[in-house]
This record gives sequence, C-alpha cells and structure tokens, in this order.
Amino acid sequence: MHSTKHISSAQNPLIKKALLLKEKSRERKKTGLFLLEGMRELQIANRAQYEIATIFYCENILVDAQNNTFLQSFSADKLISVSNDVYKKIAHRDTTEGIIAIAKSKDHNLSLLKFEGSNPLVLIAEAPEKPGNIGALLRTADAANLDAVLIANPKTDLYNPNIIRSSVGCIFSRNVRMGSTEEIIEFLKKGGFQIYCAALSASKDYTTVEFNGPTAIVVGTENSGLSEDWLNNSTQNIIIPMEGEIDSMNVSVSAAILIFEAKRQRKLNT
Amino acid sequence: MHSTKHISSAQNPLIKKALLLKEKSRERKKTGLFLLEGMRELQIANRAQYEIATIFYCENILVDAQNNTFLQSFSADKLISVSNDVYKKIAHRDTTEGIIAIAKSKDHNLSLLKFEGSNPLVLIAEAPEKPGNIGALLRTADAANLDAVLIANPKTDLYNPNIIRSSVGCIFSRNVRMGSTEEIIEFLKKGGFQIYCAALSASKDYTTVEFNGPTAIVVGTENSGLSEDWLNNSTQNIIIPMEGEIDSMNVSVSAAILIFEAKRQRKLNT
Repeated sequence: MHSTKHISSAQNPLIKKALLLKEKSRERKKTGLFLLEGMRELQIANRAQYEIATIFYCENILVDAQNNTFLQSFSADKLISVSNDVYKKIAHRDTTEGIIAIAKSKDHNLSLLKFEGSNPLVLIAEAPEKPGNIGALLRTADAANLDAVLIANPKTDLYNPNIIRSSVGCIFSRNVRMGSTEEIIEFLKKGGFQIYCAALSASKDYTTVEFNGPTAIVVGTENSGLSEDWLNNSTQNIIIPMEGEIDSMNVSVSAAILIFEAKRQRKLNT
Repeated sequence: MHSTKHISSAQNPLIKKALLLKEKSRERKKTGLFLLEGMRELQIANRAQYEIATIFYCENILVDAQNNTFLQSFSADKLISVSNDVYKKIAHRDTTEGIIAIAKSKDHNLSLLKFEGSNPLVLIAEAPEKPGNIGALLRTADAANLDAVLIANPKTDLYNPNIIRSSVGCIFSRNVRMGSTEEIIEFLKKGGFQIYCAALSASKDYTTVEFNGPTAIVVGTENSGLSEDWLNNSTQNIIIPMEGEIDSMNVSVSAAILIFEAKRQRKLNT
C-alpha cells in the first residue's frame, strides 16, 4: 500500500462526490453508488459480492491500515488515504472506525428473487419509513436467517446511511427485495405462500397458528398498520396479545417475536 | 381554567427550573422531580398515581386546552399556560403535543417490591446504558404485562427524558425497581426464582427450557454481556441461536423474544 494516493483537501472532487452520496438519495439513484462506513460493514458487503469502487481510510484512526490484510486484498488504486479533517467530513458516525467505501448498489427488484430451499420463510414490511426500524428488521432477519425480506411500497432509499448503520451491515447480507404491494402479493400467491398479516382486526393469537410451509409474515407501520390490499389477501391475520397500558410495540420487536415463533415451530417439524 | 396563570418569559424561575429538570440528572435527583411530556405519558403517570406538581400547556398547539376534561380534572393552580417560545424551550421532542408536566419521582428501591401473583415473571437488565434500549425494554415489559422490571447496577437516571420518550410512558406503568446485582440475586434466590441468563457460553436454546414457575430473564449489555455474578448464579444460561452474518441482535429485541416465549409456555400451562 506504499503507493496509495492521499487526499487532504475536502475540495477534492472525489471527496465532494462521497459527500453527495452520503447526503443525497437522488445522487445515489443517479449514480448507482452509495457510501458505506465501518470495517465490519465493508467486510459483509465484500462477502456479499458488492463491487467496491473506492476505500477511504484514515491512518490516524485505523492505525494498522498499512498492515491490514483485508485492505491489502483490494487493488492499490482503490485505496485512498485521507486526512483526519477529510475523514470527519465524509463520516456519518460519531464513533468512527477510520474506514469508508464507495460501493455499487445492487438491483433489488422482486423479479430477481429466487429461493434456495423449498420451504421459505420471508418477512414483508409495508411502507416502513424510519431507517432505524428498517435496519432493526434486517438485523433480526439476519439472525433468523430468513430467506428474504421484501419491502412493499418502499418509502426510503435502501442505501440510506442510517439503514446501513442500524442494520450493522445486514442490508448487504440479506436477500432484500422491493416491489409494490400488488406485485408482492401476486408473487406470494404464485409461490403458494401462507400470508400472515400482523393486524388488530379478525386476528388470531400468533402462537395458535401454524407457520410450517412457505410462509410470509407481513408487518405494517406503527402508525397506520397494513393497507387493505394486504388484509384482503391475508391467509390469517395474527396478533401478539397486548396486556399492558399501551397497545403497540416497536415494529421491529413485534416482527422479531413473530419470526422467532415461526422458527421455533419449524424447528420442531424438521 | 379561566384563572390559569400564563408565562411568556423564558426567564421565569419556574421555566428555568423545568429546563434544569429536563437537562440535568443531578437536578432531578436533588429535587425528586422530573419533567414529562405528552398527553398520553401524563395520563399514564396520573393513572399510576404519580404526583403531578405543575402542568404547562401551550394553547397554540393543544388547541382545545380550555375544554380538555382531563386537564380540568387538575386543580387550577397546577395549570400554567405558556407561550410558544417558552414551550419550545422546555420541550424535548420535535413533534410537540403542547403539554409538559413537572412530576414527583417515585422510590424504585428493590426492597419495596411486592408481587400480586404467586408466579411472577420478571425481566432483569444489567447496567443498560442507552436510554432508547431501556425505553424499548419497558415497552415490551408493558405489552407482556411482566410483574416487574429490575435494573441491576443502573447507569442511567430512570427519569431521563429519552427513557420516558422511548418507553412511551411505560416507565410509569411498570413495576420498575433498581438495585445492585448482588441485592437482586439475593432477592431472587429468596423468592425461589429460576434465573435464566441470556449468555453465549454454556447456553441452551431458549426454546428448550421451561419458563414455568417464578422466573427471571436476565439480559446484559450488547457490548459486554452479563457480569460473572449473574453467570455464577444462573439456573441455566439461554441463547437465541443466531444463524446469520452477525452474532447479535438489539438487546430489546432479544429480550422480547425470550419474554414472549416464556409467556407462550406459561399460557399453555394455565
């Protein structure tokens, strides 16, 4: 890494570009690129075969950069050393790790979705808005090794820095697909999925339904729940009985409870 | 509410006091008071018999303040109308509701803990630091109607505005107690509790243990897990098998999965 380029000016065109990628969803869409931060995130993205265009590292923070075998596995022309000031400018996090990359986004179109096994378990989130919730859902999906996460009627750019951060990189490892609610319902029906919608009305206690067979667990937003389209196509609405003062849990918490009950049942049946 | 006092100056001593209560844990401890925001939170605190000292309301935001029967249930000398500017100064949230109160904190000492039933299910969190995580744990505890939430070796003032906000007021409704890890272990042993510690080592899959009988589910921090004291006194360490790229979930998500599995089992046995 001796011949690595060094950038110390925030006015450098590549730094300006990185900044735009961090801040502007429009720029990410236009260029098909995004910014990712953190060694673990970069490693997960790399394992998931994301194409890495550029890696910025700050030697004041990542002190062993010159000896980092993972970084050395990239060709030297992709590695750029940056000054502290430049790093701070493009970093998104407070707790910096000294590593930020420009990577190429993938196509998350539903039509590309294929399953490895014959008995998939998928999570569907309709129109989730808060990046933190989307990240938490992806983190749970990763832990549960779900076959896919489908975002219906997406409202947020998947490569939003807050989604990447809150997913701890699971955005890269998961089979994440997007489509309209109509497209996804059609896809599920063709695949013979049971569709379990988390909803307040006409619902059964989630512990009393069977999650065996190809199964989709569908959650809406905390504010408005699921759209009529989902409820009209639901195999069965399910509910987590609430016994306290308030009548809702965080959507990522509810989804985790449902997913892991499905996992528990499916493990008993294998 | 015609004779209600009005404050339009941020220099008013009561407003300065409210600001201190919002910002300084030390001030909350010294005075035994805290600031709470939001109509729902105020209603939950009121139902939980918190003593409400003062209610500030901003008529520009809470437009029906004069006709609000809940507000009218308080004596007029506790109600203070404030200007927009003053309200913004003491408000903690971006999405304001026009209502903020000064309330008297309660004693959360462990020694005061009593259970109504003979088969309690409690959650214990050791040294949780992030207010958002504590709030989410309390929200789950509320939904599951846990008999108590015990904070071992607390690091954070329970009346931190971010805990109140993220718990959506469940901080008031729950039986929340604090104590050292030693005190809580002694308390659980005296009470004949099974102690299930969420831990990576010597752990059983959480779906294979029995959560019947007086049960404590114990979770540590995401960074450092549980202390040796807990592990040495564990009835059985339990684990949620992780099958993905990353090896951890958010602590509030993990706790919810464990709690609701316990709930599921206990419902089958009643």
